[in-house]
Amino acid sequence: MMLKAPEHQVAGHLAKDGQLGPLVDGSGFFYKPLQNDDRGTNEMAFYTSFSSDFRIPSHIRRFFPGFHGSKLLHASDGSGLHPHLVLDDLFTGLRHPSVIDLKIGARTWFPSASDDYFRKCLDKDRKTTSALLGFRVSGVQIRDYGGILWRPSHANVHQFTASDVRRTLRRFVSSNPTSDCEPDCAFASAVYGGSEGVLAQLLELKAWFEDQTLFHFYSTSVLVAYDNCDHGQSQGRPRVRLVDFAHVLEGDGVIDHNFLGGICSLIKFIYEIPDSLTQSSNA
Amino acid sequence: MMLKAPEHQVAGHLAKDGQLGPLVDGSGFFYKPLQNDDRGTNEMAFYTSFSSDFRIPSHIRRFFPGFHGSKLLHASDGSGLHPHLVLDDLFTGLRHPSVIDLKIGARTWFPSASDDYFRKCLDKDRKTTSALLGFRVSGVQIRDYGGILWRPSHANVHQFTASDVRRTLRRFVSSNPTSDCEPDCAFASAVYGGSEGVLAQLLELKAWFEDQTLFHFYSTSVLVAYDNCDHGQSQGRPRVRLVDFAHVLEGDGVIDHNFLGGICSLIKFIYEIPDSLTQSSNA
Repeated sequence: MMLKAPEHQVAGHLAKDGQLGPLVDGSGFFYKPLQNDDRGTNEMAFYTSFSSDFRIPSHIRRFFPGFHGSKLLHASDGSGLHPHLVLDDLFTGLRHPSVIDLKIGARTWFPSASDDYFRKCLDKDRKTTSALLGFRVSGVQIRDYGGILWRPSHANVHQFTASDVRRTLRRFVSSNPTSDCEPDCAFASAVYGGSEGVLAQLLELKAWFEDQTLFHFYSTSVLVAYDNCDHGQSQGRPRVRLVDFAHVLEGDGVIDHNFLGGICSLIKFIYEIPDSLTQSSNA
Repeated sequence: MMLKAPEHQVAGHLAKDGQLGPLVDGSGFFYKPLQNDDRGTNEMAFYTSFSSDFRIPSHIRRFFPGFHGSKLLHASDGSGLHPHLVLDDLFTGLRHPSVIDLKIGARTWFPSASDDYFRKCLDKDRKTTSALLGFRVSGVQIRDYGGILWRPSHANVHQFTASDVRRTLRRFVSSNPTSDCEPDCAFASAVYGGSEGVLAQLLELKAWFEDQTLFHFYSTSVLVAYDNCDHGQSQGRPRVRLVDFAHVLEGDGVIDHNFLGGICSLIKFIYEIPDSLTQSSNA
């Protein structure tokens, strides 16, 4: 098994330069190293519980990466054998994916968080757009058959303002993402619009979040990917997936109003992009 | 004009014991003293702007108290003439109203708040149910023709847990609100259910909040009132109103995900009350 750092990861720790990070095997699996603290235990517990929970409807389950247990693998940082979650590689079958990672929720801290973690999250939620918009961009890569067109650094992304976020969501579906002109939103109807588009999928998620009281998702992202070689037209619907479950709590009969509010805010941002509401040609 | 402290106020400062508080004249007006700091200016500015904003649809406008300018009146604390907002008295025509004040939003601080105010709000949001549920009970009064059956103190209400909130929403529509038994939810279908009920009205508000980017409502409450002398059956639909606009900010093209999340959480709580989903007999 040849493992390597995933090519299309836009957020989180990278398995490069001797760091501990996720690996892919090129045959459809994604290996995420379990973090050593509570986060690793929590994420493993979430996947285990979620994968066997019959209350999750199948049209919702497909928004989550498939889970295939855990496996001891040589860690990417050279520290020896380390347990990894075995997940579906979300980019399998995409040749030149454009990807955006949107961390959902005005707050990333949860009620039972330690003081240190609470302060760290709160500070970041206020410095980024999370508190203001209900979500923030954690990473983005725009590419076409020729290679990567735009991939801002983490530091750059963390400084995004509300209008940067608005512009990024337009650039993400534009044929001129690196131009100084207004993004042309040429692929908006193909990617965001249509019955299989990103908007339709986010609305399915929203409806579930209005009702489900099983889980509260803190610091979880919505990942959107589509194949930019052909403007998302032929590789089936754009992919919308939830990722990062190290801070999922039980819902205890309460809806996840924090995540729901963020999803609704994101939906509104996308609604306002020209042509996002039109049917795509293959819809 | 004979002014007195309103009988059915369940939250906020009371015009009693020499304090500055709102007054009513018994003929349909409610006089709210303008607070001396930014809050007074802000609330006045909100009412002025809102009342002339043609973008507010009429089915939404009726959730807001009618606004009739301001007036200098002798303050209830004996401090002399003081400017008051002149608003509709929300309880006009109700003989024995049961009332609940629900402060909506997981967070009551706004991005531009001062450090002091931010810390005060954050602390309260975490100590009450706001952060957890997306709303908290600010006051409640349950009465029938015989008088007040239950009216917990502010101190008591501020200590409500999630299960206290769940139980309070049931007691609010029960014929046995003071009993140690389970609340019977006898009036749930009449008050919460039906095409004119509280749920239907909250769903109208929710739909507007999914779309509107004009205002962000921090520390604003949903007030629910119905006439308990006849189980809410004959006085028209139960009243659902938004109140308290001292911390309303411009939306700047972003939805109020904080308020929306809280409203959705409240709706889910009410959905789970037995008979809330059934049609009331006069619907």
